[in-house]
Amino acid sequence: MDIVSENRSFGGRQQVFRHPSNTCGCEMTFGAYLPPQAEDRPVPVLWYLSGLTCTHENAMTKGGLQEHAARHGLAVIFPDTSPRGEGVADDDAYDLGQGAGFYVNATRDPWKPHFRMYDYILSELRALVLDHLPVTDRHGITGHSMGGHGAMTLALRNADLFDSLSAFAPIANPTQSDWGRKQLSAYLGDDETAWHAHDSTILLEEHGWKDELLIDQGASDQFLDLLRPEALAATMARRRQPGILRLQPGYDHSYFFVNSFAGDHVAWHAARLT
Amino acid sequence: MDIVSENRSFGGRQQVFRHPSNTCGCEMTFGAYLPPQAEDRPVPVLWYLSGLTCTHENAMTKGGLQEHAARHGLAVIFPDTSPRGEGVADDDAYDLGQGAGFYVNATRDPWKPHFRMYDYILSELRALVLDHLPVTDRHGITGHSMGGHGAMTLALRNADLFDSLSAFAPIANPTQSDWGRKQLSAYLGDDETAWHAHDSTILLEEHGWKDELLIDQGASDQFLDLLRPEALAATMARRRQPGILRLQPGYDHSYFFVNSFAGDHVAWHAARLT
Repeated sequence: MDIVSENRSFGGRQQVFRHPSNTCGCEMTFGAYLPPQAEDRPVPVLWYLSGLTCTHENAMTKGGLQEHAARHGLAVIFPDTSPRGEGVADDDAYDLGQGAGFYVNATRDPWKPHFRMYDYILSELRALVLDHLPVTDRHGITGHSMGGHGAMTLALRNADLFDSLSAFAPIANPTQSDWGRKQLSAYLGDDETAWHAHDSTILLEEHGWKDELLIDQGASDQFLDLLRPEALAATMARRRQPGILRLQPGYDHSYFFVNSFAGDHVAWHAARLT
Repeated sequence: MDIVSENRSFGGRQQVFRHPSNTCGCEMTFGAYLPPQAEDRPVPVLWYLSGLTCTHENAMTKGGLQEHAARHGLAVIFPDTSPRGEGVADDDAYDLGQGAGFYVNATRDPWKPHFRMYDYILSELRALVLDHLPVTDRHGITGHSMGGHGAMTLALRNADLFDSLSAFAPIANPTQSDWGRKQLSAYLGDDETAWHAHDSTILLEEHGWKDELLIDQGASDQFLDLLRPEALAATMARRRQPGILRLQPGYDHSYFFVNSFAGDHVAWHAARLT
């Protein structure tokens, strides 16, 4: 694991690492924020999964998480959103291929050899983080848009690995949305039953979540029809899932939305992880 | 003045405007953050001038100022760093021409027709802001790197227009630095006496500042030799200028440095403006 950059940030360290990934069959890059508390003792981890077109860097520079992570003593991990590089399949569309891994293990060509973000995050990167960074095994997960989908699907299927879960404007019901059907069919094939394991609304119906959920959604989000928060809300209500889904008036889908509520989410996770 | 974009941010509004500029002879773009308090009453203004290569957008997305401006009830104005567009002179170097206006009125060709950022900020944009946005005439100014230089030189020469002054890693003594001599000779010609009006250290020696100054400087800044904080510090000490110059251990020149101390600067200005 090579260090690409390190910047002092709110008394802690914003680091970027690159490493060869066996899971993805390419070099992968991720960001890690270590709060000042990590100088003295291992700290809990908040995973932040990013959305379509993002690399590890967008949320690291625009999400405004570090200030709150420093106050609460959480590390934050910023994974990339897909495998990348020459020899890795891609598509001209912004919402398929590189930058759009959707946190699944692809089973269809040309994506199958590299697009294994589900295993990458849960196994390979998690192990790297636990081995190399001063962190504990108390982990929370959040994310934005496609990354909110990733956070919810990974946590709902692996409740033993995560102690807290929240999301910003998640793609909440991708089996019923153009942000989902296109990618799930490309990566997993046309048998829609294989898609169910990657749909937060279906997974919440099936598994529930062991604790409260926190979901923030901009009420003026330009992609509201693609995100389908109403499907998730209906399932939360039907299943009597503890949690809060906040429709924030006037907010859109941008990082101005994410960083406006980053403090609430970091505090929410810190209350459960520390 | 046309609105280019508006995003809800920390309960307020992050707006971007474009307008024809008589001063610069081209279209100019700037960002304006209006805090929630501006819905009810005019609010004081903090000007944030950006550094080399930046547009109006960099600090707006990475500077982390909005959260604090919302708490304290300040508007923040993010001007561009130069005139831009076809027909506007430019240079291949990152540190001359478009993106590198240095907040002067150029007197030499090819820069003279458009590069008039000193007048643009102080007169044209100030008037636009006062006319069109819900703001008072209590104004503070800050900036980063070339923008720190801009903030200090504009305020030191126009103490009647600004009620508070701070800077992040300013180019503090450009007449003695490769970040300065090159640009001042290009924009103003070889007579170095014309440069003195654009050197914070010289201006502070001459005028002082009517209140305390706040200067933050990363002690691990990769450009420390070009910024010359030691010249400014020597003048502050010699002149017994009230103020604080903080050398922040471990911090570099990046926005990770700026946003780590954005809260301190916004609070500093708010204490003087509200």
